[in-house]
Amino acid sequence: MAPADLHDQIAELAEIDSAHEGGGLTREVYTADYDRAVDYVSELMRDAGLEVRLDSAGNLFGAWKGAEPDQPRVLTGSHFDTTLNAGRFDGVVGVLGGIEAIRELKRRGYEARRTIEVLGFAGEEPRFGAGCIGSRAMMGTITRADLDEMRDRAGVSVAEAMRERGLDPDRLDAALLDPDTAHAFVELHIEQGAVLESTGNEIGVVEQIAAPHDLRVTLRGAAMHAGATPMRLRRDALVGAAEIVTELERLALASSSGTAVGTVGVLRVSPSAVNVIPGEVQMDIDVRDSDLDSRNHVIDALQAKLRETADRRGLELGVSTITRDEPADCSPLVVEAVRAACTELEVRALDMISGAYHDAMVLGSKIPIGMIFVPSVNGLSHHPDEYTAPPDIDRGVQVLAGTLARLAA
Amino acid sequence: MAPADLHDQIAELAEIDSAHEGGGLTREVYTADYDRAVDYVSELMRDAGLEVRLDSAGNLFGAWKGAEPDQPRVLTGSHFDTTLNAGRFDGVVGVLGGIEAIRELKRRGYEARRTIEVLGFAGEEPRFGAGCIGSRAMMGTITRADLDEMRDRAGVSVAEAMRERGLDPDRLDAALLDPDTAHAFVELHIEQGAVLESTGNEIGVVEQIAAPHDLRVTLRGAAMHAGATPMRLRRDALVGAAEIVTELERLALASSSGTAVGTVGVLRVSPSAVNVIPGEVQMDIDVRDSDLDSRNHVIDALQAKLRETADRRGLELGVSTITRDEPADCSPLVVEAVRAACTELEVRALDMISGAYHDAMVLGSKIPIGMIFVPSVNGLSHHPDEYTAPPDIDRGVQVLAGTLARLAA
Repeated sequence: MAPADLHDQIAELAEIDSAHEGGGLTREVYTADYDRAVDYVSELMRDAGLEVRLDSAGNLFGAWKGAEPDQPRVLTGSHFDTTLNAGRFDGVVGVLGGIEAIRELKRRGYEARRTIEVLGFAGEEPRFGAGCIGSRAMMGTITRADLDEMRDRAGVSVAEAMRERGLDPDRLDAALLDPDTAHAFVELHIEQGAVLESTGNEIGVVEQIAAPHDLRVTLRGAAMHAGATPMRLRRDALVGAAEIVTELERLALASSSGTAVGTVGVLRVSPSAVNVIPGEVQMDIDVRDSDLDSRNHVIDALQAKLRETADRRGLELGVSTITRDEPADCSPLVVEAVRAACTELEVRALDMISGAYHDAMVLGSKIPIGMIFVPSVNGLSHHPDEYTAPPDIDRGVQVLAGTLARLAA
Repeated sequence: MAPADLHDQIAELAEIDSAHEGGGLTREVYTADYDRAVDYVSELMRDAGLEVRLDSAGNLFGAWKGAEPDQPRVLTGSHFDTTLNAGRFDGVVGVLGGIEAIRELKRRGYEARRTIEVLGFAGEEPRFGAGCIGSRAMMGTITRADLDEMRDRAGVSVAEAMRERGLDPDRLDAALLDPDTAHAFVELHIEQGAVLESTGNEIGVVEQIAAPHDLRVTLRGAAMHAGATPMRLRRDALVGAAEIVTELERLALASSSGTAVGTVGVLRVSPSAVNVIPGEVQMDIDVRDSDLDSRNHVIDALQAKLRETADRRGLELGVSTITRDEPADCSPLVVEAVRAACTELEVRALDMISGAYHDAMVLGSKIPIGMIFVPSVNGLSHHPDEYTAPPDIDRGVQVLAGTLARLAA
């Protein structure tokens, strides 16, 4: 029997994970641990009186039937898989908070006209390179072939991992969602940044979701002796890479939108010895913006700089795309419902952009979407110290309940 | 029975190594493989009529008694331990070539006045962080405490590794060489750079040996979400590190000596995920010059840039010294003997600086030293493709024989 208190539920769900490597929790999609979490959340849904089902991609649904069940439904939720060595709030707050919002509406005696469904999307985190597998399956933007091609660090494909958990990758199409059956989607989520905290706000009303364009770049030079090779005879891959790292920062700061961000999160040097000039560097580069033109300009300028640097330094250049998504605008329908809920509850709300991507971004291609952010202490996330205080989570749940009440009326 | 031909001996010695990881050979000091190599080289020494002994640090000596054995001796040799995934010529050419040079002098009927000793120095390569353990023991610049402190990648100390091979670290002092007993030291070595090849020369006459000043630098910022953290709220450790990498190149190119080199050979990013801003970067930085003032200027300017960058970007900075050696001037006694041998043999010789350090650098603090370089194809070394053509090695041995004949007369 799960505890009645939302915060105790969050703590219990955090116990369902693989080895506590580095102090954080790890619960990747399509694993035995993830299945245990599906069972746990399913039980919470049933306790709340929801009708539970799992689709062919592993997305978990809990439906509260409305008075007019044939009307397009209102969807909410998020995900409960995690990255490696992660915190306990990312995604989970939107799933367990979604169930709690329905409990709250029931406590208030609210009677929904539309059916409200709480979702736990499968594979939002990028175990297989790109994330949002479950929501992409619902929107039809992931193919059966992708399930064989996308592989995790151990080389396991999505299809193999699905079969291991009793899901049939050949039935991927059964997960497709008919957009006409969905009235709106609203996702409650931790901010994962420090904007709310640094501006003293309690709730973020998301207007746009930035999307990533990620590149994998390889620069190859010559791994020669660091002592015996004069500066002018070198083809040092790391000095070339360093020029790219600083240029990306400059380009993002100078972006036309003012909202672009650029990060080199991964940079691997080989052979990696103090007395050998780096012969090869591999970088994973992430560029995001809510403004697609602005993001494209950063990417184009970066590519030009890569070519110029490689030519000037005699380096071989390789560039491939890891992810390339479209930014999503939130729908006035949902944004206005969130704002009205905030006004009613008298919370300090800030209109903002989501720099992180979410399943809402994927659903935004076909369905009216919106998002509600709650503050992240020190802006930390994907980290064992990720934290959002219980009163902030409770406030988010109240805003979500108010939003759902408006959308389902 | 070892083959009579030097090149066959080099090939045989290359068979004595650990797993051929990456196609190259690995034979680190104070290992079972290294002991097998000691046995192999000892046999070659005895075959050449040399008197063999191992000192308390594991340095191997093979002596050819001169007519006046009480006169200060002439020393030659190099090392036959290797780095990881290395080639077969680095060091080995100077040890086996030294034995071959004595065979050559004997074939010529040369009668040495001074005793000539061929050395195989233990631990020139940096298994334990700093290299030249054997030659430092001979010069008294490594202490008993260092043998406990210096550890390899697996955490094994020098003292532990020595005991494992039957050497007593408490007898370190027995390896001390009385400088008055040594007339000169000359080391034959592959160039490990592309200067001879690119200038069309056959022999390098080394006038100075550059020495490394190596730093380990840590920059700590904040590992925050790459999407959700605006550019101006970041403390990205990698962008700071990238500024250092490009600045080091600029400083080395602008050095007052014109011969400084600077390399960031190791750069590790954590947590190393495409969607996380690098929270910490560790760099191993190598700066070398034959001109100590010039090297110090590069180091000082780099340290200033590190402090300025860390302050400006809100990063925590940690700097420690890995290695700091004095450059060594070669002795006119040895350099003139090498030049005379080159003239006699009519080889195309180039006066040059050794950018790499060698045991000769360590001995140079107390003994007249010199070095003879033979070309490295494509300047490659510390690499499976390291190669020096047999005629180039033979020419080096002839020059070494001529040099020894002059020094031992």
